[in-house]
Amino acid sequence: MTGTCDFDRIFNPESVSIVGVSPDPGFGFGRGMFYSLVAMGFAGRIYPVNPKGGTIEGLKIYKTVDEIPEEVDFAIIAVAAQRVPEALEACRKKGAAGVEILSAGFSEMETPEGIALEKEIKQIARKGIRVIGPNCFGVYCPESGLTLVPGPDLSRERGPVAFLSQSGGMSIDFAHIGKWMGVKFSKVVSFGNGADLRECELLEYLRDDSDTGVIAMYIEGVENGRDFFAVLRSVAERKPVIVYKGGLSNSGGRAIASHTASMGGSGVIWRSALRQCNAVQVGDIMEMARTSLAFSLLPQRIYKGISVVGGGGALGVNACDIAEPLGLEIPRLKKEIEDRIISILPRPGSSAGNPIDVANPFVPARILKETLLLAAGDEKIDLQIMIQLLYHYKAFARGLGADSLRDVVPCNELADGVKEVVDITGKPVIMVFPNIKQEIESMDIEEVMREVRKAFLDRCIPVFDDIADALEAVSRVSNYCRKMR
Amino acid sequence: MTGTCDFDRIFNPESVSIVGVSPDPGFGFGRGMFYSLVAMGFAGRIYPVNPKGGTIEGLKIYKTVDEIPEEVDFAIIAVAAQRVPEALEACRKKGAAGVEILSAGFSEMETPEGIALEKEIKQIARKGIRVIGPNCFGVYCPESGLTLVPGPDLSRERGPVAFLSQSGGMSIDFAHIGKWMGVKFSKVVSFGNGADLRECELLEYLRDDSDTGVIAMYIEGVENGRDFFAVLRSVAERKPVIVYKGGLSNSGGRAIASHTASMGGSGVIWRSALRQCNAVQVGDIMEMARTSLAFSLLPQRIYKGISVVGGGGALGVNACDIAEPLGLEIPRLKKEIEDRIISILPRPGSSAGNPIDVANPFVPARILKETLLLAAGDEKIDLQIMIQLLYHYKAFARGLGADSLRDVVPCNELADGVKEVVDITGKPVIMVFPNIKQEIESMDIEEVMREVRKAFLDRCIPVFDDIADALEAVSRVSNYCRKMR
Repeated sequence: MTGTCDFDRIFNPESVSIVGVSPDPGFGFGRGMFYSLVAMGFAGRIYPVNPKGGTIEGLKIYKTVDEIPEEVDFAIIAVAAQRVPEALEACRKKGAAGVEILSAGFSEMETPEGIALEKEIKQIARKGIRVIGPNCFGVYCPESGLTLVPGPDLSRERGPVAFLSQSGGMSIDFAHIGKWMGVKFSKVVSFGNGADLRECELLEYLRDDSDTGVIAMYIEGVENGRDFFAVLRSVAERKPVIVYKGGLSNSGGRAIASHTASMGGSGVIWRSALRQCNAVQVGDIMEMARTSLAFSLLPQRIYKGISVVGGGGALGVNACDIAEPLGLEIPRLKKEIEDRIISILPRPGSSAGNPIDVANPFVPARILKETLLLAAGDEKIDLQIMIQLLYHYKAFARGLGADSLRDVVPCNELADGVKEVVDITGKPVIMVFPNIKQEIESMDIEEVMREVRKAFLDRCIPVFDDIADALEAVSRVSNYCRKMR
Repeated sequence: MTGTCDFDRIFNPESVSIVGVSPDPGFGFGRGMFYSLVAMGFAGRIYPVNPKGGTIEGLKIYKTVDEIPEEVDFAIIAVAAQRVPEALEACRKKGAAGVEILSAGFSEMETPEGIALEKEIKQIARKGIRVIGPNCFGVYCPESGLTLVPGPDLSRERGPVAFLSQSGGMSIDFAHIGKWMGVKFSKVVSFGNGADLRECELLEYLRDDSDTGVIAMYIEGVENGRDFFAVLRSVAERKPVIVYKGGLSNSGGRAIASHTASMGGSGVIWRSALRQCNAVQVGDIMEMARTSLAFSLLPQRIYKGISVVGGGGALGVNACDIAEPLGLEIPRLKKEIEDRIISILPRPGSSAGNPIDVANPFVPARILKETLLLAAGDEKIDLQIMIQLLYHYKAFARGLGADSLRDVVPCNELADGVKEVVDITGKPVIMVFPNIKQEIESMDIEEVMREVRKAFLDRCIPVFDDIADALEAVSRVSNYCRKMR
């Protein structure tokens, strides 16, 4: 099942050809990819290819791959399906270690022509060039600046998360979500129909890749179930693997056939096999992102006792109701700690019983910090969650006659305080910032919330939109670590 | 358990006194409520009361309730707990039908003083004045302009949803969420500790209230379980009742005691009792909002077959996987309908198999409309969900050199088209607009998405952020109607 692959020349190529860059304006994938690589600041040399020749942004468009004046490390193929085999063969002759084929029109069409074309691709690949795709969105590597299509605005910041995806749309969506949610990537590979390189080899590579600490993957079907689960198990022993398996229902199974030409498989079997491998199964893209964030930023430990600090009695009740079925506890704090906490909180309306209700949304950052420090002093507490209802600051700013919300939200003060608490206590803190004011007139709140999110993420403090998401993410990390013991 | 109550004088008072309006600037609840009522354009006469006298915004502050020159219909009490009984008695003597007591410091403190004060309130209430609270955020009624604290910016638009909440924070949050999510209210009552008026009487009133078509409620504990479930059953036979019960876990049960002085009860018993009453149980505030929206805007019918139309193969797969466990189907369409759909969609990349993948996010509105019309022609389809990935228009706008995103997103055209489809076919359409680009630099996308949401809601088309939310909401309506047969 595996061949040799020089992954370094694929992810960090010094030279790339893009086959199918029209000299005429329009929305072709090849042109789009050219501009995206430029926008991303891709460091290597780019060779556009099109039989018409011409130029793009002052750069020569080569009429054939063969004309390119040097060997290329990697090639991006974006021509009509019928012309793909010829382009692939040309890239192979040019010495490319690999290509990504963005074109669709292969086995996912479920037509004899499409299936035959894909077979041709496999045959050429076997002669000594590795293929990502076809019917994919390619490779994103923040280190080199390779990007997905259409991905001119992905982050160049590197991080520990690798993502493998059979779906192109999912790969670009996940990369975008990561950008604001705080998930930072080592490599993202959209492998589409997976005619050559696919789940097993890519997983094995990522297992040994020192830049990758967490692996997420979206799969619709695997080539060989036995091989896949054997590899998955060996990888999950080394680093967490978050698996989102699509197509576990009857109609879902039908949908994946026409999406990536995959066979689905039964939900029961998948769930039990994934559990046996200690893979972390998730059910949608946002859950995958939140889980990736938690594995990126939380120390990999077993978490049991949680303190919940924030405004809103009902939110605290909600936290308790969610925590318990997840195997997490929100235990009552020691009497002396409760007493000290209640002595610094506003009265009436506050409660130190854990969940700790701080009574109003405008409690100063230093008191919130002190509350977290005190609660962490209870040995039952492994991790803390702080809920802040920042949208209330809008009325507060109005009352104070402040010019803008930004002037009154104690963003950096709070972020610095929380970071200090984590450093002092060694117990992680997760921030939760719900936003219940999303009407057109409250764009100012949205803007501040995004800045606040960034301020915390910059300090490696995870941020979630609601308490259920935060607790679920903690339980994922905790359950993985419990099984790893 | 029930007394007489002139609810009309409470929800639509011609005169209101606010007891506890300080003449000095600051953040008191009474002053806040005064300004909130003014901001809301409350139509009745307002009488501020404070022993210090003085004026507020040119209006006389009466030193006592007794001094007010007319009978008042309703009173808002926002003085320290110890002074509440005296204020309540004064309002009773002034002929008020009811009061809301915003002050905290009663039985939720779990102190002998707090419990005794609440008992005093009950005794006065029994003499002939109805009490909402204490420890609550009051009454919101879009018709009259009464509002919660701090609620200067709630909507005056009326709608079919009533909300009863033991939690003040939950009541104001829910009212705010409704504003942008499209849930419109008849009445919202935050009743806090529920010393007098509470779940049973309020439910009975809403059952017979012609302005209310859907009831949502957040409860932590009820006064009398047998009475409550009897009333709930009688109400749910007439209109849907959405119940969010907080405090079903052990620690949650502890948390509600200090929040609203409630007794929790077992999760198993609650779930089964709610099911027997055909109440619709939800687990958090956002789920409650989505369910309320669905019951407000979808015809109350049994839904089974769903068509899913939109870009993104993986999103279609996800829709199938979610639908099946909810008892919904995404059935393959008739061959002739499939053929007609595929003939109008871009190729390759599209698929008409249901989920219908339209291949790219820029398919013109008229083609999307035609696709919906065609799919509705299959008698297996009861409801349609359209997923639109509007964030892709950002790259599109850049490519076109457009000045702003707003110029290229076909918002009104699409909304008009979808509305027409609903009117022609009689089958509802739900829109799903995921937003995966939430970074600081993409505020323009957020702004357009909010405008788009409003455009659809103005046409009574429900909008959700993701497909799972949409399907879950449909299943709630469908399951309720199935049991009602």
